Amino acid sequence: MSAIEARLKELGITLPDVAAPAANYVPYVVVGDMVYVSGQISMTSEGLTLGKVGADLTTEEGAAAAKTCAIGLLAALKAACDGDIDRLVRVVKLVGFVNSTPDFTDQPKVINGASDFLVEALGEKGRHARSAVSAGALPLGVAVEIEGIFQIA
Amino acid sequence: MSAIEARLKELGITLPDVAAPAANYVPYVVVGDMVYVSGQISMTSEGLTLGKVGADLTTEEGAAAAKTCAIGLLAALKAACDGDIDRLVRVVKLVGFVNSTPDFTDQPKVINGASDFLVEALGEKGRHARSAVSAGALPLGVAVEIEGIFQIA
Amino acid sequence: MSAIEARLKELGITLPDVAAPAANYVPYVVVGDMVYVSGQISMTSEGLTLGKVGADLTTEEGAAAAKTCAIGLLAALKAACDGDIDRLVRVVKLVGFVNSTPDFTDQPKVINGASDFLVEALGEKGRHARSAVSAGALPLGVAVEIEGIFQIA
Repeated sequence: MSAIEARLKELGITLPDVAAPAANYVPYVVVGDMVYVSGQISMTSEGLTLGKVGADLTTEEGAAAAKTCAIGLLAALKAACDGDIDRLVRVVKLVGFVNSTPDFTDQPKVINGASDFLVEALGEKGRHARSAVSAGALPLGVAVEIEGIFQIA
Repeated sequence: MSAIEARLKELGITLPDVAAPAANYVPYVVVGDMVYVSGQISMTSEGLTLGKVGADLTTEEGAAAAKTCAIGLLAALKAACDGDIDRLVRVVKLVGFVNSTPDFTDQPKVINGASDFLVEALGEKGRHARSAVSAGALPLGVAVEIEGIFQIA
Repeated sequence: MSAIEARLKELGITLPDVAAPAANYVPYVVVGDMVYVSGQISMTSEGLTLGKVGADLTTEEGAAAAKTCAIGLLAALKAACDGDIDRLVRVVKLVGFVNSTPDFTDQPKVINGASDFLVEALGEKGRHARSAVSAGALPLGVAVEIEGIFQIA
C-alpha cells in the first residue's frame, strides 16, 4: 500500500474505483507532469449529496460534501498515476463550485471541507491555490462540484 | 486542407475566422505546447444562441448551443496553430458554463453537445477532462460559454 | 523598484502585501514557469466591494471592483516571484466571476475593468485569454472574484 493510501486508511478512507466515463469526456488527462481532473460531484458510497447550501444543507453539510469531491479527485489522481498515488508532487489548484442560494456567502467554508481534507491527508503537498464560488446550479442537483490540477512525478 | 478540416467538412462545418479581440483580452494564449482559449459563447453564423436552458431552451437546444461553442474553440485553436490545426495533440480540458434556471440539473447533457462533437470530429485526441456547471448568468444572455485548454505540437 | 512597480506607481497603485492564508489553501502555486493564483475577491484598503452587479452596483462599479481583483492578482504574483514582479513573462488566462442578478448580461464589461488595467499596467504582456461569467453568489458577498494563470521567467 502506498504511503498516501496508508494515511487515507488511518483517516478511514478507501479510494473508490474511478467510474468508467459515461460520455465523450474522461476522468483525467495527463500532459507532461500535470494532471487535469474532471469536476467531481459530491457523492459517497451511499449516493449523491444533493441540495442547495443555504437552503437544503447547512454550511457544515456543504463542507462534508466538498470533502467527498476531494476524495473523488484523489481517486482519479490515483488512476492517472497508474495506481501509484505516491507519485503526487503537489496539489496545484482547485476550483470549487457550490450549489447555493443567491445570497449565500460562505463558499470558502464549504470548500474548506476539501482543502482541509487534502492537507490532512497529504501534508504540505496538499496545499493548493483555489477559487471558491457558487454555481447557478449543478449536475443532478449535487451540492458541490470541484475540479483539480495536480503535479506528479 | 488539413485532415481535421477535411473531417469537419464531412460534418458540414467550416471553421469561422477568429474575431478580432474587442477588448484587452485575446482569443488564445500559447505557452510552450499548451493553448489556453478564451471562453467561447454560443453563436452561429445566424447570430447568438440566447436564453436560459430549462426555461427558454430545452436540454437538446442547449446541447446544440454547446456544439457551437466547441466550433468556436476549434476556430481559435486553428489560429493558435498558425492555421495548421493538425498540430493538435489533444483536447486537454473544457469548462462548460450553462445559462440555466436555478433548478436545472442536466448540465452534463448540455455540455455533451461540445464533448460529443469534439470526439466525432477529432477522434481519440478529442477526449478531454471537463467540468460542467451552471453560471448565474452569461454574457449577452447566451445559453452556453465554454473555455478550453489544448496541447499542440 | 521594479519597472512594473514603477509603472503601477504612475497609475497610483501600490501592491498590498499578500495576506497570510486563512485556511489550508495558499495564495499561489508555482509549477515550473507557471503561476496559479487563487481567486482574488474585490476589495480595497477601505474594505470589501460588496453587492450584486445589476442590482446593488452598476456595471461601471463592477468594473472598478474587477480592477481591485487584478491588483490582488499582481500582489500575489509579486510574492510568487520572490518580490521581483519583473519576472513576469505574460498574463496567460483569467477567469472572472461576477456576482450579478440572473438577467445581467454585461459580464465582459465588468471583467474589462481587470483586463484594461492589466494592459495599462503591463503593456503587451498584460494581454490574456479569459472567461467572463456570473457566479450564483460569491464569498462574503463580494461583487467580483478573479483567478489567474501567469507565466514567469
